[in-house]
Amino acid sequence: MKKAGILTIILLAGFCWAQESSGFQPASTNVWGAEYPRVDSAGKVQIRVKAPDATKVKLNFWSGPKVDMEKQPDGFWTVTTTPLVPGLHYYTLIIDGAEVSDTNSQAFFGGGKYASAVEVPEPGSTYYSIQDVPHGQVREVWYNSKVTGTWRHALVYLPPNYDTQTKARYPVLYLQHGGGEDETGWIRQGHANVILDNLIAAGSCKPMIIVMAYGYARRAGQAAPDLTGKPFGSPEMMKAIQDMSAAFEDDVTQALIPYIDQTFRTIPDRDHRAMAGLSLGGMQTFQITLNHLDLFSYIGGFSGAGGMLVLGDRKLDPKTDYNGVFADPAAFAKKVHLLWLGVGTKEPERMRAGLLRLHTSLQEANIQHVFYESPGTDHEWQTWRRDLKDFAPRLF
Amino acid sequence: MKKAGILTIILLAGFCWAQESSGFQPASTNVWGAEYPRVDSAGKVQIRVKAPDATKVKLNFWSGPKVDMEKQPDGFWTVTTTPLVPGLHYYTLIIDGAEVSDTNSQAFFGGGKYASAVEVPEPGSTYYSIQDVPHGQVREVWYNSKVTGTWRHALVYLPPNYDTQTKARYPVLYLQHGGGEDETGWIRQGHANVILDNLIAAGSCKPMIIVMAYGYARRAGQAAPDLTGKPFGSPEMMKAIQDMSAAFEDDVTQALIPYIDQTFRTIPDRDHRAMAGLSLGGMQTFQITLNHLDLFSYIGGFSGAGGMLVLGDRKLDPKTDYNGVFADPAAFAKKVHLLWLGVGTKEPERMRAGLLRLHTSLQEANIQHVFYESPGTDHEWQTWRRDLKDFAPRLF
Repeated sequence: MKKAGILTIILLAGFCWAQESSGFQPASTNVWGAEYPRVDSAGKVQIRVKAPDATKVKLNFWSGPKVDMEKQPDGFWTVTTTPLVPGLHYYTLIIDGAEVSDTNSQAFFGGGKYASAVEVPEPGSTYYSIQDVPHGQVREVWYNSKVTGTWRHALVYLPPNYDTQTKARYPVLYLQHGGGEDETGWIRQGHANVILDNLIAAGSCKPMIIVMAYGYARRAGQAAPDLTGKPFGSPEMMKAIQDMSAAFEDDVTQALIPYIDQTFRTIPDRDHRAMAGLSLGGMQTFQITLNHLDLFSYIGGFSGAGGMLVLGDRKLDPKTDYNGVFADPAAFAKKVHLLWLGVGTKEPERMRAGLLRLHTSLQEANIQHVFYESPGTDHEWQTWRRDLKDFAPRLF
Repeated sequence: MKKAGILTIILLAGFCWAQESSGFQPASTNVWGAEYPRVDSAGKVQIRVKAPDATKVKLNFWSGPKVDMEKQPDGFWTVTTTPLVPGLHYYTLIIDGAEVSDTNSQAFFGGGKYASAVEVPEPGSTYYSIQDVPHGQVREVWYNSKVTGTWRHALVYLPPNYDTQTKARYPVLYLQHGGGEDETGWIRQGHANVILDNLIAAGSCKPMIIVMAYGYARRAGQAAPDLTGKPFGSPEMMKAIQDMSAAFEDDVTQALIPYIDQTFRTIPDRDHRAMAGLSLGGMQTFQITLNHLDLFSYIGGFSGAGGMLVLGDRKLDPKTDYNGVFADPAAFAKKVHLLWLGVGTKEPERMRAGLLRLHTSLQEANIQHVFYESPGTDHEWQTWRRDLKDFAPRLF
């Protein structure tokens, strides 16, 4: 790196955020020194990208505006959006047909790639921002899985004082990311550690360990299925998905949980073990917990709750679905301390319909559960942060 | 996310890496499911990116080929490079003048942005890849710095068995990233945790704690300097850099070290505390350690060693530079257990010249030190991985 380059970068890192104008401020999700994206108090977002030779540049919010940007005489393309709801919004740029991330933004793993995102602040909400309270640690761990035959990476949140109160043992929440995301999502996008720090400091929830695993798996020795030419929804594809789901279920129950219970001071019983997940992670949660009620007693489905893959577009049949665990409401209520479902009011209709159908089915089957609707939020992280904020205090 | 999207992503995540052809394999630095970039055994790299409406796409290896890509009839642009040396090579794509990252690659923080990189394997080298040995943990910590007035994020590597050998105390290596990188670099790009796991398992180095801090700082209450219109190298700019360096020095010595010694089972004395860094981090290491020999007794400069900012293009004057610590070789050797310098043989001439001049100056001043040249590697992470592999076993 050239001398000028290093010095410029040092200055950018230390002396950024000086500029502001017309109420727009650099987003908290920017890399240091980047003036754009910018957000105003109404939630309008300004994006600016240098592409002097491009003929078309499009801003592509995944759950939001998809708009053409305008070329400026200086070779930059700019756009100001209509107001977005508060929260973290994934986006990409489409530059002459190439879908790319914005190098002004931090990179967040979503949609199977390192995507850009802009944080639109929620006025008055401090529960997911870092406060002057004791902070837990997030640990990266690698565990050897006989199921997959590989070393697998997971993140583990330990509450404040875990290292100093060396006799204390803690309950554990297994918390899963969504499809296309990975084990880093709940920390980087969700701020789960900050949410827990704040809840614990306020006395609103019990100190607990949170385990965030990589939600994809393939069995050791299993060949990649050849899906060439197989249409979407084909028996071969559904078989491949079932294989993967089963491999992940075995990885969690046979490799991850034993590793966590050996490695950390957990309370290693079902009464002190919860699982929740968002979207795909919610479906996995339903499959894993309902197949293993000997291991889990708290269950959370955040914008995803086992409905889609198992039920398709039909209602739950409490007598037969999920091995009949919903057949006897009293027995279920005795065994499962919490069944929690959540969805945002602005999520796509198909997503909402699945959750609402499951909620109604459970009501009709007299299954005690919590149904939470996040006002005004979409299939995005603000919904799931609120879910965690409502869910965690009900645990243990 | 649509149903088809989720399922496709699940399949990509679990069932990738099936394809191969003509000796090219997907790089280990790809996101899952991405067939490109690909690398062959000679180190040639193939890149492929979809940009159907672009008129020019360029591949931009920061320390390597900068070449035009070729448009294919299917809207993808492709290129195969000449052989690259082994290691992790940062790159970006320039699509119609827009410098962007390749969404097929994992994102690594370098150059002040989330850049792409391709890992070219080094045949026979297993020291920086995950092996079937005990693994340490990497922890994310947040410490409150009175110097900056902020919560600061750092990564901490703890050796295997740290949690089970609860009476053991460990020496500490403070290990800094380069300019434009951040505290994640030594884990994500450098694999420092894996290198240490492997060295410790082989009995080649002592179990130690490694602390990786965010190497930029601004003092609490200090306003951003207005450098508008100030030319590069102006007194105002140099003042701003000195302010930042001094703030980071105080942060390390007054906030970070006390926090680490309070939080982890360290051996909290100078004989068991080392500091090293790459490039900018090497310069910071020289400044901080030589100003605080009461705190440090092992010093490493990896492709950067205090020369540039302090010495400019002149030789070291052992009598006066660095408060005269080099004036008495015997006293220095008694106080500093290790002074270590390293540089790659293929680094830019200016970079090499600075290190070589410092090495010669130290020789002439009869200052005991190690000078290591990494054969065939550039100002890139393969040099720094080798540096760590040579440096760590000499510690403590």
